[in-house]
Amino acid sequence: MRYQSVPSLLFNLRRISFSSSSLYSATQSHSQCTVIHCGGRDTQAMAMDASEETLRRAMADKQAAADVQGNAVRDLKVSGAAKADIDAAVEALNALKLEKSSIEKQLQAAITGGSSAGTLSRDAFRQAVGNTLERRLFYIPSFKIYRGVAGLYDYGPPGCAVKANVLAFWRQHFVLEENMLEVDCPCVTPEVVLKASGHVDKFTDLMVKDEKTGTCYRADHLLKDFCKDKLEKDLSMDAEKAAELKNILAVLDEFSAEELGAKIKEYGITAPDNKNPLSDPFPFNLMFQTSIGPSGLISGFMRPETAQGIFVNFKDLYYFNGNKLPFAAAQIGQAFRNEISPRQGLLRVREFTLAEIEHFVDPEDKSHPKFSDVAHLEFLMFPRKEQTSGQSAKRMCIGDAISEGTVNNQTLGYFIARVYLFLTQLGIDKERLRFRQHLANEMAHYAADCWDAEIECSYGWIECVGIADRSAYDLRAHSEKSGVSLVAQEKFSEPKEVEKLVIAPMKKELGLAFKANQKNVLEALEAMDEKEAMEMKSTLESQGEVEFHVCTLGKAVTIKKNMVAISKEMKKEYQRVFTPSVIEPSFGIGRIIYCLYEHSFYTRPSKAGDEQLNVFRFPSLVAPIKCTVFPLVQNQQYDQIAKRISMSLTAAGISHKIDITGTSIGKRYARTDELGVPLAITVDSTSSVTIRERDSKDQIRVSVEAVASVVKEVTDGSSTWTDVMWRFPTHMNASTDE
Amino acid sequence: MRYQSVPSLLFNLRRISFSSSSLYSATQSHSQCTVIHCGGRDTQAMAMDASEETLRRAMADKQAAADVQGNAVRDLKVSGAAKADIDAAVEALNALKLEKSSIEKQLQAAITGGSSAGTLSRDAFRQAVGNTLERRLFYIPSFKIYRGVAGLYDYGPPGCAVKANVLAFWRQHFVLEENMLEVDCPCVTPEVVLKASGHVDKFTDLMVKDEKTGTCYRADHLLKDFCKDKLEKDLSMDAEKAAELKNILAVLDEFSAEELGAKIKEYGITAPDNKNPLSDPFPFNLMFQTSIGPSGLISGFMRPETAQGIFVNFKDLYYFNGNKLPFAAAQIGQAFRNEISPRQGLLRVREFTLAEIEHFVDPEDKSHPKFSDVAHLEFLMFPRKEQTSGQSAKRMCIGDAISEGTVNNQTLGYFIARVYLFLTQLGIDKERLRFRQHLANEMAHYAADCWDAEIECSYGWIECVGIADRSAYDLRAHSEKSGVSLVAQEKFSEPKEVEKLVIAPMKKELGLAFKANQKNVLEALEAMDEKEAMEMKSTLESQGEVEFHVCTLGKAVTIKKNMVAISKEMKKEYQRVFTPSVIEPSFGIGRIIYCLYEHSFYTRPSKAGDEQLNVFRFPSLVAPIKCTVFPLVQNQQYDQIAKRISMSLTAAGISHKIDITGTSIGKRYARTDELGVPLAITVDSTSSVTIRERDSKDQIRVSVEAVASVVKEVTDGSSTWTDVMWRFPTHMNASTDE
Repeated sequence: MRYQSVPSLLFNLRRISFSSSSLYSATQSHSQCTVIHCGGRDTQAMAMDASEETLRRAMADKQAAADVQGNAVRDLKVSGAAKADIDAAVEALNALKLEKSSIEKQLQAAITGGSSAGTLSRDAFRQAVGNTLERRLFYIPSFKIYRGVAGLYDYGPPGCAVKANVLAFWRQHFVLEENMLEVDCPCVTPEVVLKASGHVDKFTDLMVKDEKTGTCYRADHLLKDFCKDKLEKDLSMDAEKAAELKNILAVLDEFSAEELGAKIKEYGITAPDNKNPLSDPFPFNLMFQTSIGPSGLISGFMRPETAQGIFVNFKDLYYFNGNKLPFAAAQIGQAFRNEISPRQGLLRVREFTLAEIEHFVDPEDKSHPKFSDVAHLEFLMFPRKEQTSGQSAKRMCIGDAISEGTVNNQTLGYFIARVYLFLTQLGIDKERLRFRQHLANEMAHYAADCWDAEIECSYGWIECVGIADRSAYDLRAHSEKSGVSLVAQEKFSEPKEVEKLVIAPMKKELGLAFKANQKNVLEALEAMDEKEAMEMKSTLESQGEVEFHVCTLGKAVTIKKNMVAISKEMKKEYQRVFTPSVIEPSFGIGRIIYCLYEHSFYTRPSKAGDEQLNVFRFPSLVAPIKCTVFPLVQNQQYDQIAKRISMSLTAAGISHKIDITGTSIGKRYARTDELGVPLAITVDSTSSVTIRERDSKDQIRVSVEAVASVVKEVTDGSSTWTDVMWRFPTHMNASTDE
Repeated sequence: MRYQSVPSLLFNLRRISFSSSSLYSATQSHSQCTVIHCGGRDTQAMAMDASEETLRRAMADKQAAADVQGNAVRDLKVSGAAKADIDAAVEALNALKLEKSSIEKQLQAAITGGSSAGTLSRDAFRQAVGNTLERRLFYIPSFKIYRGVAGLYDYGPPGCAVKANVLAFWRQHFVLEENMLEVDCPCVTPEVVLKASGHVDKFTDLMVKDEKTGTCYRADHLLKDFCKDKLEKDLSMDAEKAAELKNILAVLDEFSAEELGAKIKEYGITAPDNKNPLSDPFPFNLMFQTSIGPSGLISGFMRPETAQGIFVNFKDLYYFNGNKLPFAAAQIGQAFRNEISPRQGLLRVREFTLAEIEHFVDPEDKSHPKFSDVAHLEFLMFPRKEQTSGQSAKRMCIGDAISEGTVNNQTLGYFIARVYLFLTQLGIDKERLRFRQHLANEMAHYAADCWDAEIECSYGWIECVGIADRSAYDLRAHSEKSGVSLVAQEKFSEPKEVEKLVIAPMKKELGLAFKANQKNVLEALEAMDEKEAMEMKSTLESQGEVEFHVCTLGKAVTIKKNMVAISKEMKKEYQRVFTPSVIEPSFGIGRIIYCLYEHSFYTRPSKAGDEQLNVFRFPSLVAPIKCTVFPLVQNQQYDQIAKRISMSLTAAGISHKIDITGTSIGKRYARTDELGVPLAITVDSTSSVTIRERDSKDQIRVSVEAVASVVKEVTDGSSTWTDVMWRFPTHMNASTDE
């Protein structure tokens, strides 16, 4: 029996390329690989793009032809040929060189993904979003005044509000709607728990050390960087060599320490900064270790996921639920991973918020009572078959995906659909969201099926939610380690008749025959399985005795007919006892929020046309505050109206801010757009005010009394902006224009 | 200049008796002590209760008299006195013994706080609450199947919901109402930050080790237990000895390691379990230590409070607020303290949620614009004077406390009042809530004033919120360590004329006179303060030269009149630059919740009178869910009505649960009361249903259509139960009775 534990999506969640499976699997290597690169993208990359291969071959051909022609020119010159002949030969050589240079350009374009302009604009876009986020304190590199720590970020005021909104919606959409049992467990976790879950032994990445300075690098990153760099810059590389490097990129995440080490040696890869030699790759455990209590004897870790806190509480939670299945438990909390060298900004960090659900279900019945509510939903899915055959993600109806057997069961399908609704209601672009099925080699042997919600952003397709059917693995692991039985019972409505094997050793006869050894023989008889027992029964009946190997004695003994009675009897069973399966949707909240930032961001020219203004088109649900209030000019009357409106907004439960700075109204609009605030109220009279919508920039005029209720309608979603536009006069006055 | 940093309330928050100040203060010991025991309670205990002292003296007198009388009896017997005489003497002896025994009983009662029955019922009450909380999964000892870890607890489903409600209300009451800037920083913190804050060097408790087994104990706990035990059990102890032990209890928290060690030796205190000898006390740092990144070179800790994350971001937050003061930043998050031996259940744990506010203010103007909103509020306050003169807490109006100077400033007073409103709205009994001022020796030298919100529960008066004016200490500490200036500016509306000292050394003359030493002399001249400079000026004017000591040369030189020009000039200043003061309310969320459980819990007899039923009288704001829905009997019609009601409740945003178990309605009411659910809907017809209120057990009959809006009114506080009782018929039918 193999024990292999990763695909808690949690393990994968934070890692775009997770460490090779051999690090995480006790008995089997090459069975798991990257969640993202190995899947959709690199599977395609692996089959080297036809045009790239053609171009590399054409390059080589032209180079060869140019070499031949170059020799010809030299020969002509040496042999003192006629000038006309020499000139003709040189002209032919130049033509070949031109052709080669043209092919080189095409090849360059093919390698950088169609157009190098595309790559550039992607970087520029990322930088524009990042600058806005950091300038407006959506996030702040932690401990900045002390030059920070890689992989740690603070959420500043607007980021913190967005996060609180996302978590509140998550709690509403999952915990409350589905009556889940929410728990809140500590981050500090004793070693025994994470030993049982497999993290202590296997939650590692391979690392190499600069042998002179001691600086550490992730071994797979170095090899990946080397291959990518080589492929992009060495255009004269032949097609075979290029195919080899591409293949390495595709299978890199499945490499063992030895394989990675061998490749690093073969390619002569050295430390990036100083070309120092590197050590062999060795595993580094990614958990932050600490010690609990003053004695230093109790080893502990900061939890790498929140799921284990739920598993160890299964028994109490099952009881709390009236000893009934299915039920789900949920937890929102911090998780910690001591990344070797964090890259990719907010996507790979050392401490992050997870929101996890463990839905416990009878393994023999994974139907879901509410599946019909979502069966009609259509979205981009990327099943295993499409990935391995080089096709792309396709729009599918989740009901069809279940009935065709593409998704393993209804409960898994139900959660996929609920995750789709959750993400798109937050503001994730549904065209840049897909559900990718894990390939067979990405999943642990015990997993029934796994799908990742991947969101496309400037870093590529990023796993943001994992939805896995982990079968009974986790409960069994904790049951074995703790000795506490973690099972469920199904009481039969009426008792069932079942045939049961009965082995009845005759103690007296055994005692006489085996004396001191009788206990060993007795236990060995009782431990026989059905097949062994029935074979013994028939041999005893036909021959009267049988040779029987007793392991604990290390020898065979002779069992006679009168020493044991073997039979099958009908017995009544009143219940079935089983270990529940668990279906686990696990959300990387920070990653979802980052992708949401990218999907919500756009720029538009200022009125004067002299600059680009930044806007986040957050839905009201997510926006850090719902509206801002601007007195048009600084005077006591307007300030008082603004305060009155502020009080009515507070009473209506609408988060808002008054901006009384003296700057122009256009600047104040720009400032609030940059925070993604949906509505702005400008106080330009004492009886009525204007409300301006962020994206359309439309303005309506509303009485001071009505303003809070209009803002509430629009921001709580009971009316759309278009609805209210019909009911109130449009405002055209230049005074509050941008 | 002294640097001493504790009284971030955070430091104290988790510790009922915080370690001795000498551990936490670089240069001064005995300046700080326990937050709670040293304050209110033990200050009173210290002045030994008059009646107890009288009784101890009376005991000693009676004992002495009995000894004398005993000797007299013996003498009579030896001298062969008459039987009548001997009998009379024996009778007198017995009378003395009886009197002594009576005094002994009184003394016992005086020691155990008036009545030992009181102590017993307090323990019984605590146990009843605790049993209910644990059985209904409000909390669960963490990692229970692995026999748990001391000081770590999970919140189960109802506890988790209560916590989420408390935090949501905190965010509403403080962050939104006051427009605070909320941030969210990581728990993993590099050493440099906590070095600057003082935690690395001083955040310690004193511990002793069992010299044979290595088991660790808190030194002050051992001494405290010894004294308490002795006082309770040794009734023959004389009054002087008792006073000595009582005094130790009062000043224990100010003991240095040496003093503690000396007392432990003097009293012969050994390891509690096995009487093994103990080591000398030594400091143990309470932070969980870890290492950041793979190299093992970056030392880090799990944060012991959230405040430091705000201080290091001061510059960005000040900018975000438009470079204006005052403003407040807030943070909710986990904090960690590796307690030596956690006791007192949920009150002293190793990981807990803090909610902290840092309100930055101009040290020259600590008024608060909204103070008038709260000035009229009255509640129990326990100022310094009342504590040291042995009086009790008294009802005061916060407006008076400010105008009398009892509370240092308006902003501090405003937060005290807002904390009062927060806690009482959550359901904390206002008669068991007091604001206790720190004694002078509890505060750090830099603190302007500190008040703790203490809540009385079965463990005594517990510090749950600290509200401290920490002056500029924290920002200065990080400014010095990081080299980044953390200051605010006040721009003057018009420039101010200020007189400034100008020292102008004449380089040429200094060069000629002092050659190689001229730089040292020049710098020493420039470094003079106003007093020195003006003295030099007058001496130069009267005598033409002056002897001047140059530290860096280690000798005096002669300065002549032509070597330096000293004057005072009027200069224009356009702004004032200063380090803001910080006023810090810091909330121990877990402690508040635990006290809330105790204040909300009561029992009442079941209808049959055969058992006591448990009820939590949570306000709707806090209740884990707002209502339950019970179909009276199991049939399809009622189930469908229950589902319809459930959908309308969900649409109205009301958390609820359907209970379709077949148990009696009385049992179901008892179950929901035990979770503190305010309202229960019983479906007993298809047109109208009953709504039952938890504490009054009153029921009204409401149509199926109206039920969600009635529940919403009552649970969001827009109507009271009494209001709606008037509008709907009271339900009297026995079918849904308990």
